[in-house]
Amino acid sequence: MTDLDRLPVTPDDIRQAAQRIAPFVHRTPVLSSRRLNEMLGAEVVFKCENLQRIGAFKARGAHNAVFQLDDAAAARGVVTHSSGNHAAALSLAARNRGVPAFIVMPTNAPTAKIESVVRLGGDVTFCEPTIAAREAAAARIEAERGATLVHPYDDVRVIAGQGTAALELLADHPDLGAILAPVGGGGLMSGTAVAARAASQTIRILAVEPAQADDAWRSWSTGVLTAGDPPDTIADGLRTTLGGNGFVILRALLDDFATVSEAAIVEAMRLVWEVLKVVIEPSSAVPVAALLERRFDLGGRKAGVILTGGNVDLAMLPWQAKAS
Amino acid sequence: MTDLDRLPVTPDDIRQAAQRIAPFVHRTPVLSSRRLNEMLGAEVVFKCENLQRIGAFKARGAHNAVFQLDDAAAARGVVTHSSGNHAAALSLAARNRGVPAFIVMPTNAPTAKIESVVRLGGDVTFCEPTIAAREAAAARIEAERGATLVHPYDDVRVIAGQGTAALELLADHPDLGAILAPVGGGGLMSGTAVAARAASQTIRILAVEPAQADDAWRSWSTGVLTAGDPPDTIADGLRTTLGGNGFVILRALLDDFATVSEAAIVEAMRLVWEVLKVVIEPSSAVPVAALLERRFDLGGRKAGVILTGGNVDLAMLPWQAKAS
Repeated sequence: MTDLDRLPVTPDDIRQAAQRIAPFVHRTPVLSSRRLNEMLGAEVVFKCENLQRIGAFKARGAHNAVFQLDDAAAARGVVTHSSGNHAAALSLAARNRGVPAFIVMPTNAPTAKIESVVRLGGDVTFCEPTIAAREAAAARIEAERGATLVHPYDDVRVIAGQGTAALELLADHPDLGAILAPVGGGGLMSGTAVAARAASQTIRILAVEPAQADDAWRSWSTGVLTAGDPPDTIADGLRTTLGGNGFVILRALLDDFATVSEAAIVEAMRLVWEVLKVVIEPSSAVPVAALLERRFDLGGRKAGVILTGGNVDLAMLPWQAKAS
Repeated sequence: MTDLDRLPVTPDDIRQAAQRIAPFVHRTPVLSSRRLNEMLGAEVVFKCENLQRIGAFKARGAHNAVFQLDDAAAARGVVTHSSGNHAAALSLAARNRGVPAFIVMPTNAPTAKIESVVRLGGDVTFCEPTIAAREAAAARIEAERGATLVHPYDDVRVIAGQGTAALELLADHPDLGAILAPVGGGGLMSGTAVAARAASQTIRILAVEPAQADDAWRSWSTGVLTAGDPPDTIADGLRTTLGGNGFVILRALLDDFATVSEAAIVEAMRLVWEVLKVVIEPSSAVPVAALLERRFDLGGRKAGVILTGGNVDLAMLPWQAKAS
């Protein structure tokens, strides 16, 4: 049995995060559908973080990080490099604290993402679209402004914040026998794992990753943290590499780990839109795809899935791209 | 001041309906978005009947009708003619009561709608795609089987059931200063109006209809129930004609009535998908379109909108049909 209090993020960190962020985030609804249960061959409930502020669970971790800073540090602002939901989340959290958010974005970031950050008051710095350029630009802002870097997923404050989604889900459904989330950088999955194991010694903690972005699965299976092949998946939120803190936590707490095909992700995404009637982005569909393909033996357990976000381009839906 | 107890459906009917149907329908969540508020220029909350069982508020009225029958009548089954959400709703309600549902559908009904009824155990009879043929087929089943006709919208039991959505919304948000719903046959709008006026003498009760299916608006404005021009709107749930009971209730209780263009409906639908992250059908977008176009002077009032349903063909989205 793992001593949870020796992990980089503890159950207490998550409980404190929940109190800290409560004024700023939605307690999102949990949905279910008898028809979807029939199709998945299991009783499944869905924690709708696509209905969270900024349309993704990332609002949780960002608020937990920003609201833990002391006043002097906060006043100097926060900085991150991200072209995704974390950039919007950090902008919102900083605005709620009344401090600047410096967001480094690659010049090829989608216009909608840039607009979203600007709308939320983020101060955007563009850089070349390479990891090295992004990190260099963020480091410069850290040095020049004294701003605090808030890493999108390997920051322990961020991981604790992301864990609050599972905390709420388990409070609403204490009878869950399994909990599933997707893995990108590992922030959500790590927080979910700690919250779930604190709630139950027997709950099955199940991770899912796109087969075409399976670095975390490789790292978890082999015990060696590896970057893997360059990710090439429709699940744009999961194109990141597992962080060190996530690696430690997932190695300690995961019961099983599956990878799923791109076709299964698209099918699961469409199914959730059609049956559950909520808009989810491809990353959210990744654990649903694993259930659809019976990749885990749930043995009659009731399962909870965290739907991570709903930020998609409605003009370019994957099942239509396929049809044309 | 209208004496609500002299209307075809009373506040008491709605309260009793709420108790009767509670075991069979979802208490749907109410969502809101600060960004959407900014775009609509008002504080607006959305009652998500698209997340209701069978994906539409119709589950409420159908259960209220079916569970009011005495055992002998119920055993002979229920019958309706519908190619839409009411057919699925009645099939589900009958299955929950353990009695047959006879559904008359036109031969040109969409395959998805037919499959949905069959999946829910409905007994489908096909007929020619005319109103006369539908009514004749339903009347024959009534006569031969002794089945009870449950009209999709002009049945007082159905109207009372539909009113329970507003009852829940007003319980969750007692500070609403306005409530909006779309009008097709008038079942939802009538139930909503009675529930809202019972809750508040001052709440603004606002109806919205597609300009290209404006028979209810014409009937309400002139005081003469009229069929109007043949409806030609993307809002397929609203292609029906206002019923007599609805006419009486809307004349007595509505504060205002707007009609909206097809373009505004599509824009509002897309906006709800994009910002609120829920899948709605075009009918649901009709009152949102009126808010988007500032068709009502809300005077700072907080508004509640009933999102009626989420049954759409994901392969044929209107903003993409336009683009191609």
